[in-house]
Amino acid sequence: MNLDNIKVIGFDADDTLWVNETYFRDAEERFAELLEHYETKNKIDQELFKMEIKNLELYGYGIKGFMLSMIEAALELSNNEVSQATLSKILDLGKKMISHPVELLDGVVEVLEKLQGKYRLIVLTKGDLLDQERKLERSNLSEYFHHVEVLSDKKEKNYQDLLDHLEIDVNHFLMIGNSLKSDVLPLVNIGAKAVHIPFHTTWQHEQVEEPKEKKGYITVSKLTEVLEYL
Amino acid sequence: MNLDNIKVIGFDADDTLWVNETYFRDAEERFAELLEHYETKNKIDQELFKMEIKNLELYGYGIKGFMLSMIEAALELSNNEVSQATLSKILDLGKKMISHPVELLDGVVEVLEKLQGKYRLIVLTKGDLLDQERKLERSNLSEYFHHVEVLSDKKEKNYQDLLDHLEIDVNHFLMIGNSLKSDVLPLVNIGAKAVHIPFHTTWQHEQVEEPKEKKGYITVSKLTEVLEYL
Repeated sequence: MNLDNIKVIGFDADDTLWVNETYFRDAEERFAELLEHYETKNKIDQELFKMEIKNLELYGYGIKGFMLSMIEAALELSNNEVSQATLSKILDLGKKMISHPVELLDGVVEVLEKLQGKYRLIVLTKGDLLDQERKLERSNLSEYFHHVEVLSDKKEKNYQDLLDHLEIDVNHFLMIGNSLKSDVLPLVNIGAKAVHIPFHTTWQHEQVEEPKEKKGYITVSKLTEVLEYL
Repeated sequence: MNLDNIKVIGFDADDTLWVNETYFRDAEERFAELLEHYETKNKIDQELFKMEIKNLELYGYGIKGFMLSMIEAALELSNNEVSQATLSKILDLGKKMISHPVELLDGVVEVLEKLQGKYRLIVLTKGDLLDQERKLERSNLSEYFHHVEVLSDKKEKNYQDLLDHLEIDVNHFLMIGNSLKSDVLPLVNIGAKAVHIPFHTTWQHEQVEEPKEKKGYITVSKLTEVLEYL
């Protein structure tokens, strides 16, 4: 893939710059333990996921919506029998997620150091605005980025609107991220380029099939590999 | 106040373009009714407010954080005795707030029609990104605005960063909003101008004293009055 035209690089944040999905998986484990009297782990996992998807349009992405869905799923799964103490524990579980320290992924600082100055670097993330600003601040990565944009979703239209607003030519834009569905395919569909770096765990809702013909993007196994192309 | 230099006008959204605080007041009333077996209305109001402030740093502004604080306050106020059915009702209360239709305030369309073209109009709101985008879409006001920015807070630094990012000279900027604390004083402090339009109800957390010397802003009683100055 020829990246000679690229002037602006957008980085996804969660599971591209720092660990995120792992904490959701941990919280789901803990949630299933708290409700183990009522249902099997499998059923609890399924019902929580269904609840999240049902509420996604209303709550959007992020930890607060996840907390509200856990509360609602706990009430439903237990037929309103879940104890008040357990509900308090669920709130605590979410609060701990929000205040969790940021763990950078391997090679992030090295890659940003090398690309800084050569390209305009921006962060494009979805989820909760406050959460994402806080994580960026805690990550100490702010200095590398020209601009940070938190999107309510990452569909083609969200990207197109953003490129228009920032006056970025789609031919000059490269997106780097872990989600084929959110960070790669919408970009390729609007004519930009993308680099896919799979993370070891992906939320079920983010899973899509790889297209038969791989066009407009490459897949690498770790972030530092992008330096071979840029 | 001379507004001849103004080129860009920022509008607050909640309680400036459309009704918002009223729905929080209504939800608080309903919350107090749901818990009336445990405490007086006064005490319930106070405890819910305290909980919101305690959680503000973690949750930020918006309905989802309010919902989580209501759940937590209900558990605490009732000594973990609040029924599961009541907690479900609290969740429903919040969901209804999120999906509430947008009610525009008087004169909004008239004022935007008249200012459009003469000034660059932007929306500057705080709160939940998805909520605010949804409200703007439902309001049918998107066409009037050049840009919409949802801020995690409205302090001097948030405004300064935004003006820098949008390359707006502070002398060319006027902010219009209902909150003296969030829409007026921070702007005046960084050298911009502001118009204050008090709304009949203000969240306790947004209340500040009027400065002794009123400088850099005017107060009007309704939005259409700004047309006399612009």
